[in-house]
Amino acid sequence: MVYAADFALPGMLHGKVLRSPLPHARIRRLDVAAARAMAGVRGIVTAADVPAVRYGTAVRDTPVFATDRVLFQGQAVAAVAATTPEIAEAACRAIALELDPLPAVFDAEAALAPDAPLLHPDWASYAALPVLAREGNIAARARMRHGDVEAAFASAHRIYEHRFATPLQHPGYTEPRAAVAAWEGDGRLTVWCNTQLPFDMQAVLAEILDIPSGRVRVVVPGIGGGFGGKLRVGVEHYAALLARRTGRPVKVMTTTEEELTAAYPRQATTITLRTAVDREGRLLARQGRVLLECGAFANSGPGSAAICMQILVGPYRTPALDLESLAVYTNRVAAGSFRAPAGPMANFAVESQMDIIAEDLGMDPLDLRLRNVVREGDLGPAGEALAGVSVAECLERAAEAIGWRERRPAPNRGKGLACSWWMTTGGSSGVFVRLAPDGTATLVSGAVEIGTGALTGAAQVLAEELGLELEDVRVAGADTRDAPFDYGAQGSRTAFSVGNAARVAAAELRRQLCALAARRTGLPQEAFRLERRAVVGGGHRIPIADLARESQLSGGGLIAHGTYINPAPPYDPTRVENHPLPVFNAPSFHAHAVDLSVDPGTGEVTIHDYVVAQDVGFAINPTWIEGQIEGGVAQGIGEALSEEIVYREGRVLNANLTDYKMPTAQDVPRVRSILVECPSAAGPYGAKGVGEPPCIEPPAAIANAIAAATGRRVFSLPMTAEKIVLGEGG
Amino acid sequence: MVYAADFALPGMLHGKVLRSPLPHARIRRLDVAAARAMAGVRGIVTAADVPAVRYGTAVRDTPVFATDRVLFQGQAVAAVAATTPEIAEAACRAIALELDPLPAVFDAEAALAPDAPLLHPDWASYAALPVLAREGNIAARARMRHGDVEAAFASAHRIYEHRFATPLQHPGYTEPRAAVAAWEGDGRLTVWCNTQLPFDMQAVLAEILDIPSGRVRVVVPGIGGGFGGKLRVGVEHYAALLARRTGRPVKVMTTTEEELTAAYPRQATTITLRTAVDREGRLLARQGRVLLECGAFANSGPGSAAICMQILVGPYRTPALDLESLAVYTNRVAAGSFRAPAGPMANFAVESQMDIIAEDLGMDPLDLRLRNVVREGDLGPAGEALAGVSVAECLERAAEAIGWRERRPAPNRGKGLACSWWMTTGGSSGVFVRLAPDGTATLVSGAVEIGTGALTGAAQVLAEELGLELEDVRVAGADTRDAPFDYGAQGSRTAFSVGNAARVAAAELRRQLCALAARRTGLPQEAFRLERRAVVGGGHRIPIADLARESQLSGGGLIAHGTYINPAPPYDPTRVENHPLPVFNAPSFHAHAVDLSVDPGTGEVTIHDYVVAQDVGFAINPTWIEGQIEGGVAQGIGEALSEEIVYREGRVLNANLTDYKMPTAQDVPRVRSILVECPSAAGPYGAKGVGEPPCIEPPAAIANAIAAATGRRVFSLPMTAEKIVLGEGG
Repeated sequence: MVYAADFALPGMLHGKVLRSPLPHARIRRLDVAAARAMAGVRGIVTAADVPAVRYGTAVRDTPVFATDRVLFQGQAVAAVAATTPEIAEAACRAIALELDPLPAVFDAEAALAPDAPLLHPDWASYAALPVLAREGNIAARARMRHGDVEAAFASAHRIYEHRFATPLQHPGYTEPRAAVAAWEGDGRLTVWCNTQLPFDMQAVLAEILDIPSGRVRVVVPGIGGGFGGKLRVGVEHYAALLARRTGRPVKVMTTTEEELTAAYPRQATTITLRTAVDREGRLLARQGRVLLECGAFANSGPGSAAICMQILVGPYRTPALDLESLAVYTNRVAAGSFRAPAGPMANFAVESQMDIIAEDLGMDPLDLRLRNVVREGDLGPAGEALAGVSVAECLERAAEAIGWRERRPAPNRGKGLACSWWMTTGGSSGVFVRLAPDGTATLVSGAVEIGTGALTGAAQVLAEELGLELEDVRVAGADTRDAPFDYGAQGSRTAFSVGNAARVAAAELRRQLCALAARRTGLPQEAFRLERRAVVGGGHRIPIADLARESQLSGGGLIAHGTYINPAPPYDPTRVENHPLPVFNAPSFHAHAVDLSVDPGTGEVTIHDYVVAQDVGFAINPTWIEGQIEGGVAQGIGEALSEEIVYREGRVLNANLTDYKMPTAQDVPRVRSILVECPSAAGPYGAKGVGEPPCIEPPAAIANAIAAATGRRVFSLPMTAEKIVLGEGG
Repeated sequence: MVYAADFALPGMLHGKVLRSPLPHARIRRLDVAAARAMAGVRGIVTAADVPAVRYGTAVRDTPVFATDRVLFQGQAVAAVAATTPEIAEAACRAIALELDPLPAVFDAEAALAPDAPLLHPDWASYAALPVLAREGNIAARARMRHGDVEAAFASAHRIYEHRFATPLQHPGYTEPRAAVAAWEGDGRLTVWCNTQLPFDMQAVLAEILDIPSGRVRVVVPGIGGGFGGKLRVGVEHYAALLARRTGRPVKVMTTTEEELTAAYPRQATTITLRTAVDREGRLLARQGRVLLECGAFANSGPGSAAICMQILVGPYRTPALDLESLAVYTNRVAAGSFRAPAGPMANFAVESQMDIIAEDLGMDPLDLRLRNVVREGDLGPAGEALAGVSVAECLERAAEAIGWRERRPAPNRGKGLACSWWMTTGGSSGVFVRLAPDGTATLVSGAVEIGTGALTGAAQVLAEELGLELEDVRVAGADTRDAPFDYGAQGSRTAFSVGNAARVAAAELRRQLCALAARRTGLPQEAFRLERRAVVGGGHRIPIADLARESQLSGGGLIAHGTYINPAPPYDPTRVENHPLPVFNAPSFHAHAVDLSVDPGTGEVTIHDYVVAQDVGFAINPTWIEGQIEGGVAQGIGEALSEEIVYREGRVLNANLTDYKMPTAQDVPRVRSILVECPSAAGPYGAKGVGEPPCIEPPAAIANAIAAATGRRVFSLPMTAEKIVLGEGG
């Protein structure tokens, strides 16, 4: 496996990006003449050299380079290709960039003020998803409503209202974003990069470069983690533009400083949540408002903000609901879709509040949850019928495993619970499958294996369906030229969707194999089945390898195709407004439980035990799934306790991995996984998406455990030792 | 397009091969210590370092390196990897190789002598195709027989017996054989090379390296001509072994000297042909014997020798037949399958003799041919029913175009005719096809585009079937990892077989597109057809791009697979013995006519006009086909007049492109192509294979024209000026 960051071509140049040092400013002067004259510099591109295209996922608001204004510290202003990275960097410093600072907004609240400076004065002229409601600094406003909220609050036994805040968190992939671009003589471009979405990258690069998408080939040689941070164009366009300018292959790779100032971190949120309950602790109604900060460009903010509402409902019966979400522009980094985008932030709010309610009502937090969780056949927040509902079982099993009966086992020690739900994202998957004369199968998919093992899961499905072993299946693809379209490694969908497409192809291959066996033996095709690398039936056992060889010699060869798309469940459109993702497909349910101590003097948190009970529908590969759960919990612990990109006046204070504190192996406890199998109707063997959920609940579970241990509650992430001991005022 | 010869990887080493300077010798000493110690040398491999595997197409007789004996000048003895090609070459020279010469045989006749030294004393232990009859220096002996030959000869009006000889000819591809090999940490190998048969290469490399074939990936980035010379492993195994030894990517590329001493040239033949005719010139019977020289290893010699017999029959009615062919080992280079292997050699014999017969009987050579050619429904030599027979039309049209009525228009000027037939080789083809949202299609094939345009032909078929333009179809593949199996770019089969597989896939995509259109409009699926980039019917016109986009968003995507294999026609097994290729599939027919002058003083030949009438079944792309015809005629002119690898005592005298005389652009006349369309039952729209035939007839047509111009006949190729003027004694 060659990771994109290690990929190199002969004669390759190295590109570096000059980025804005200020959060909002007018460009008075941008002069590259001196830089261009430096020895070893081969080409420089700025906004003046590229098509005047704005790209973007939900809103086409993003230029390749800043034109007249810079909108955040880190925005690209120019890119340089040189014979070494060092020369390219020196040339960036030699570019004369003179800026006139402008008034800026650094949080969503400020950006909503009537007199706030507009990030995008021309916002109305941008193309955008038709479903979005936009205005000024609001990139999207959405709503979920049903029931008589006013009446419910009026009749409530108690009403709780809290406000929660979460920060920018870097996705923390091991490998920086990297791309190598090379043009062929006939105007075709190949980009080797570590994107999670090769086909989306192909389309966006074609737009940016103003060429037909068929002329762009995107190949992912290998990818060292993505977590949603590598969904969108990162450095690929700079590599492609510099390669076009210089006529040479160009590699661009980010530094840690660029990662922490100009990547796609998890969006910061401020969430107000108001809940009405009756005397028995039954939820009567919820009101809430999400302010999700997109940063300078919308990116996936409109989607994430809207999904926050589903998570704010939680997997709870909520008779009346009135939630609003806003995705808001600010002069900070354009944030993105970090693993379970919207999940941990909203879950931190709703599950913290559930514990507060239980405490206030004198109820056990587990009992309060069990009284309110959705059950099979209930309706979800958009009025969709819920199936495969397992949240009660997840809660009970997690609680039992953590020893819930003893919730405060020692002074300064406490246990916390949190539960949630999540979707299995839809989108098309296609596969080509080939059986080779050595009896092995190749699964050609346009999806990318980002280290989750999801494609291994799809390969297992194929192996199972063909009577092969996993080692007999080779996965190939991640190449927009040869592979069928795949919606990409996002939203916990890969094993689910590619696995289902593989089942379709396998059925066709089974038919071909059984027909060959029938022809050979004279028995009917239906007499045969596939098992242990052979076609078996009627006393015959014919190795698949033999039939593949035979077919290749005299039958055209054994190949097949398969496609799949997860059908979106029907919902009640009167319950949602301007929501780009109103229902969760094939939802999963899960509960986390943690046992921890807090040092009363220092505020240091020590986690003794961590349990995840996750409904995976069907565990295709338990080992890989446990790996996903352990990794997700580690990221969740980082978000809970230490990770934050710290800004002061729009400038990042900790753009290095010493001051940006990700948990190390020593900070992460052993995580115990309980795989609950409550099958979905659609997934292969009932499987549900598993990749994103594990990082949703850790902040809430840890917050609840800290409260249990200390009696003190922290309402903002990360829950640093300082906040625990000194409170959040400081 | 990056050709294999230009392909490079970072950190790549360069490999060179030490080759035997003697034609037959015992290895007394092989000491690489001094070479290994040289600065820049990274690794050396010899027979002692590699698995004791013998590989081969028909007979597994070929070791990777010579072990105890060398069998021809040019056989590999060791390979060296170093930081530069120059160091690797110097290291080869520094290897101590001491040889004791052994008695050798340099032509097939000598190799058949009872006391001839055996090239392969262990021949009986080699695995081989079961159909082959082997013994001693005879790698294969085959026969075609039918009718009462003895009686026919006894009753003949005249009997003619002649002997013809043809030399070794280099395939003359522009790009040398080249390979870059790289191993991954998990024991997987990728080889970028210019093979015509990626899947065969994959299988052979796996055998040589003693690893499962699934661990070998063969990619053909681009190939600068093949002509059959790049069918078999050339330098790929040396690159792979050196890369395994050094842990670094290694590139090996041949020099011109290696090409002319150790490539796979067209086999040399000696053909004796005895023909009986009646008073009216009707053929009564033929007897003949082919001695085809394999060189040191059998390679494709057994197949080529056997096919010689079909060409010796010619496209003529032959009531009685007794032909024998022998593929014979000698101590010369292991020859191979140059374009239409066996074709020009046997055609030179049979068509020269036809003119001699006509001359002797006082008949016009055209009339003699027309009296004897096969007609629709006749049986071929193996008793197979012939269909799509067009040889008479080809002869008549070629003759008319060349102005045959005036066969000797001036002193020393004459016209010549020759006709023949050829097969469209079978073998499986599979394709995957994808429709992208921009309305373009990708055709993924395991076949290689070797510059013939054959894959363009397949792409045209796909475009036609999908209502697209050729520019809308992109061909991808030539990669054993991702692409479906294809039998490879050999035997004029690519456009035919890949085109047919593409038709199958297109039918499936048509079904999908019409179903989408039906769903959109409410009309039945049958109401729709594909034309001009749209699905059209019932007053609707829906662009294919729209439906592809829609399907990708909400339907799984538009993909399909297709396979095809050309069924071999039934034949009479009593007519053939030990023949590996007894019948021609979907045969093509053709006639060439040439008008030339011979300088009586110098023997210099000037070609004034050259006409090819070739039955292509259906002309998928006339321009590309004409290109094939022009190129084939150029190679045939080289074979006819100047090309020969000259040996003396088993050593090549002209291993450079000054002394090995290929025709240049100035030597090749304008070629006029007449495309005859007599459809085959199997090919797409009736198409037949077109790539190989054009180089079959030039030697015979030119020989006949020289005879017409000078009254003198040359019985051996090349027909040099010396032979024409001074005769063949010298």
